[in-house]
Amino acid sequence: MKLRIACSVVVLLTVSSLAQAQFRKPEDAVKYRQGALTVMGHHFSRLGAMANGRVPFDAAEAQELAATVQALSKLPWAGFTADTQRLSSGALPAVWREQDKFKAASERLTASTAALDAAARTGSLDAVKRAFGETAASCKACHDAYRN
Amino acid sequence: MKLRIACSVVVLLTVSSLAQAQFRKPEDAVKYRQGALTVMGHHFSRLGAMANGRVPFDAAEAQELAATVQALSKLPWAGFTADTQRLSSGALPAVWREQDKFKAASERLTASTAALDAAARTGSLDAVKRAFGETAASCKACHDAYRN
Repeated sequence: MKLRIACSVVVLLTVSSLAQAQFRKPEDAVKYRQGALTVMGHHFSRLGAMANGRVPFDAAEAQELAATVQALSKLPWAGFTADTQRLSSGALPAVWREQDKFKAASERLTASTAALDAAARTGSLDAVKRAFGETAASCKACHDAYRN
Repeated sequence: MKLRIACSVVVLLTVSSLAQAQFRKPEDAVKYRQGALTVMGHHFSRLGAMANGRVPFDAAEAQELAATVQALSKLPWAGFTADTQRLSSGALPAVWREQDKFKAASERLTASTAALDAAARTGSLDAVKRAFGETAASCKACHDAYRN
């Protein structure tokens, strides 16, 4: 599973002609990655509302939310193509200057969302709380370093 | 499976206070549904390139693409909340005037993406071609009626 995640991230992250070829123009890549991050963030926030006690914990809904977060966490990285550097977006130049570190950060996210998904499947609020906290830390670390 | 899809769509589509409560403001709901549709459309287009012979058929990649399309096809509908009617977007007023028909159209999409996912799992290009065509028809019917 870890190997599969790592491989997916390697494939998706490679800022290569292959990734660029997925998008007709760089603007499409930006729109794609922003869309994926928006949708992931929405589901993650709803899960956070449960983890933080703002809404009652619903184990089935938490599983659905975590599964969606996990599926989406693999996607945005393909949109950080080299030809999008010159476009205005929330991404800092460090994304492209520190490709290895950025890739590692995205790998930490996909690993933590896999753990969050596994935690939600247990049906335990405590497990979800812990895994949510770890995923949130992973989001924050990446935002602090790579988002304007 | 069909029941599960139908139930999910009913839950997601209901333009209710529950759905609105998912979003802090109507602008967030529009951004969410547009993000989900953008990401779904991207993966669907890439699958279409294989179905239409513009890129070589890769069974494993087709499965990954179809699975992502299927997962995403359940999401956008929650963003068509009643309080977004007044906002500028591609959605026509008919979305809210014809809620039952719009819901039926979204159900046709989720049913066709489930069939597309199943087709991709067979590894057969012919099966993918057929299911892709049916899904594309479902997209087009909804766009014709509900998208500006």
